Amino acid sequence: MRSEYATLDSFFHPNSIALVGVTVTNPEHWTRTFLNALLEFKFNPLYLVNPKGGEVQGLKVYTKLADIPSNVDYIISTVPAKAAPGLIEECAAKGVKVAHFCTSGFAETGEDDGIRLEAELKEAARRSGVRIIGPNCMGIYCPKSSISWNTAFPKESGTIGYISQSGGNTISLINAVKLRGVRFSKVISYGNACDLNESDFLEYLAVDPETKIIAIYVEGVKDGVRFRRALEKVVQAKPIILLKGGVTEAGARTTAGHTGSLAGSEATWDALCRQLRVIRVHSIEELANTLVTLQFMPKPKGRRVALIGAGGGSSVLITDQFEKAGLKVPPLPEELRQKIREFTPSAGNILRNPIDYSQTATELNKLTETTAIVSQWDGIDFLIVFFSSGFALQRGIKCMLDMIDGILEAVRINIKPIAFIFNLDISLEHIETALALTQKCVSVGIPIYYSFADAAHALNLASNYYENRG
Amino acid sequence: MRSEYATLDSFFHPNSIALVGVTVTNPEHWTRTFLNALLEFKFNPLYLVNPKGGEVQGLKVYTKLADIPSNVDYIISTVPAKAAPGLIEECAAKGVKVAHFCTSGFAETGEDDGIRLEAELKEAARRSGVRIIGPNCMGIYCPKSSISWNTAFPKESGTIGYISQSGGNTISLINAVKLRGVRFSKVISYGNACDLNESDFLEYLAVDPETKIIAIYVEGVKDGVRFRRALEKVVQAKPIILLKGGVTEAGARTTAGHTGSLAGSEATWDALCRQLRVIRVHSIEELANTLVTLQFMPKPKGRRVALIGAGGGSSVLITDQFEKAGLKVPPLPEELRQKIREFTPSAGNILRNPIDYSQTATELNKLTETTAIVSQWDGIDFLIVFFSSGFALQRGIKCMLDMIDGILEAVRINIKPIAFIFNLDISLEHIETALALTQKCVSVGIPIYYSFADAAHALNLASNYYENRG
Repeated sequence: MRSEYATLDSFFHPNSIALVGVTVTNPEHWTRTFLNALLEFKFNPLYLVNPKGGEVQGLKVYTKLADIPSNVDYIISTVPAKAAPGLIEECAAKGVKVAHFCTSGFAETGEDDGIRLEAELKEAARRSGVRIIGPNCMGIYCPKSSISWNTAFPKESGTIGYISQSGGNTISLINAVKLRGVRFSKVISYGNACDLNESDFLEYLAVDPETKIIAIYVEGVKDGVRFRRALEKVVQAKPIILLKGGVTEAGARTTAGHTGSLAGSEATWDALCRQLRVIRVHSIEELANTLVTLQFMPKPKGRRVALIGAGGGSSVLITDQFEKAGLKVPPLPEELRQKIREFTPSAGNILRNPIDYSQTATELNKLTETTAIVSQWDGIDFLIVFFSSGFALQRGIKCMLDMIDGILEAVRINIKPIAFIFNLDISLEHIETALALTQKCVSVGIPIYYSFADAAHALNLASNYYENRG
Repeated sequence: MRSEYATLDSFFHPNSIALVGVTVTNPEHWTRTFLNALLEFKFNPLYLVNPKGGEVQGLKVYTKLADIPSNVDYIISTVPAKAAPGLIEECAAKGVKVAHFCTSGFAETGEDDGIRLEAELKEAARRSGVRIIGPNCMGIYCPKSSISWNTAFPKESGTIGYISQSGGNTISLINAVKLRGVRFSKVISYGNACDLNESDFLEYLAVDPETKIIAIYVEGVKDGVRFRRALEKVVQAKPIILLKGGVTEAGARTTAGHTGSLAGSEATWDALCRQLRVIRVHSIEELANTLVTLQFMPKPKGRRVALIGAGGGSSVLITDQFEKAGLKVPPLPEELRQKIREFTPSAGNILRNPIDYSQTATELNKLTETTAIVSQWDGIDFLIVFFSSGFALQRGIKCMLDMIDGILEAVRINIKPIAFIFNLDISLEHIETALALTQKCVSVGIPIYYSFADAAHALNLASNYYENRG
């Protein structure tokens, strides 16, 4: 394992990269994606190869790989599928360690030509010792090594390792958690996996010291027995969250056309995740919310929650959502209700848990005191504070931020995990509030969610994980 | 029924309103909510009553109701709970038809004083013939009559009637659908329902010619037999969507503190909705998505859908979501695939349904032609076009809007229902795109959703409804 780790680790820390097949003439062409991103991330040295030669963005374009005057240990290929096997021979001659083939047109087409080409590529790799990422994928994003294939990905490194069979689902997840402060150590879009596959990367991330949590988007696996063994071993060390694409018959038909994968039945995947304590999610949004939770929510002692927010109707609905998700909303003891009543008028306040602060929210000291009393209550394991759109619009951003400060101050004394929920509506004023509240939460390392159901579900998944792990 | 209808209808078209209890001194006080909103909506004539007298915003403040020189047929009371029964007597003397009591502090407190006060209020109403909305609620929003209690509610009227036991959940729903073009005929926040209750309003909306769809948020009902009978009758005429608050034990405990309701068991409500073909939802977001669907999606012939979008991973996940929700994603027939292949390169394209337009999206005529071919396919009943955040950011807003135009042009020829999905991430650039796409969809009367799961679920609920109705 150790030497396999060192080999894979070197792929994430190449001394140089060559882009083979990058267009010389058309700046809008998709093959410029990698060049633009690597320049944005200031990767260096970077070499370009295209039979036409010339110069792009001040970089000389070599007509062939062999002409590059220095060592190249990593190439990103955007040459047409049929040229891929031949390129492997050139890579071997140049001493390239790993070749990422972005182009599609291989086994995923389901056509004889594509299937044959992929087999040839695989055989060329085996013969030459050059390892392959892909084909039909976006390859590696590793901000610490300045490797990216998207100019908009965050430049900061984080602790999430993400193995995704789909490039698009890589972008979707990174975008979905970007503003909530979740950052990645290593992300691999690995496509058809003709050589290096999900199990190789999983075993690597398990040992990688920069990776604390592992997320996987998988459509199908090449070697089910090995993948199962890898999951079983890795899950002992790090939480794994798995999103399986192609769980319905029509979905599986689509994976065949996407990455040439045999999808496996829903029952098989469900049993696998249950047995191995792998956290199973069903959408990018769920994956995003679960990552936010595992990254920022300290492990609570149990699943009993105090809900603090404004509005009777919201209080009823959030209680239903949390209880249905599997969390517990116990009633506030009478002596604590009395303590809060001493400084808040009873009318209009629901003080049973949820605790409704509608009438006192503008009196910040009362809200702080209420939160302090609730957070001392030993009947709960964590706190959720929720804001509705109407309330936020009425109070304004400054008031909301002050409220968060007051609440956090009160909770800090009695150290209990806390998270915020801001029910999101699509309108510009409301989004400004959402962004301001999100920024605030990120700055203090606290999770924020945008719906009751999303929060309840993610917190329940995290609770299940902690309980199962013991 | 007819005369009861006329009575209730007159409450939505008052000739004059008096605000009793509005503060004279403090412009920030909550009792100004109604004044601000009615002024914003230009309701006229509006009278103010407060024992202190004086003037507010250019309006004379009468010291008592009796002093108002004209007829008053509708009052909104923000007087303290204990003054409510006495006010009914004054209303009777003045010829007021209906009194809305906003203030809380009645039966929902669960305390003897509050319970007694509510009984007194009810008795005063019965004796005097003055009808009551509330107490502990926000009352009526009827934009056509210039009645509102929130300055930010839309001024345009629509076709949704909404009966909500919670004021906050009224704001939440109106905000959640505002940008997507859903507008309301009549909205009633009715709180403790000591006199006029959910069944009265339901029977009224069933006959109201301006209301085409009825949404209900209910925590508990006063008379279960009557409510059931009302639902049974009304659902023959108009679709009803019901959100029941307090379906868990802890949730039911919260409804007791909110509106003093006995919540009823989940099983009872589930059976009720199934039997009566009432569409059941479980959150404000779900209610919002279902309203968008029923309002803007023409009834499809069945549940077979063509999915058109960019990205293999997204295609796999959306297929799973639609199939799991109960919709059908049939494979595209070979002859149609061949037709599309004639003008699109096969590599990188999944042409099985979902139809992946990744490689051709910039060539608008190809996308239009593809959509035209797919919409002619008699194996499907409606079309869904989906956009991912990465794709949208890369292409830019103008390109996305052009794509929508091209797609709609192609579909118009073969008239099939269509909807768009834009996967939403929280970032400013992305929200700008979401707003632009939303505006576009609203301008042509087409539904837009912000996640695969939300769209699939709402479309399935609508399909169930149409099938059950036959």
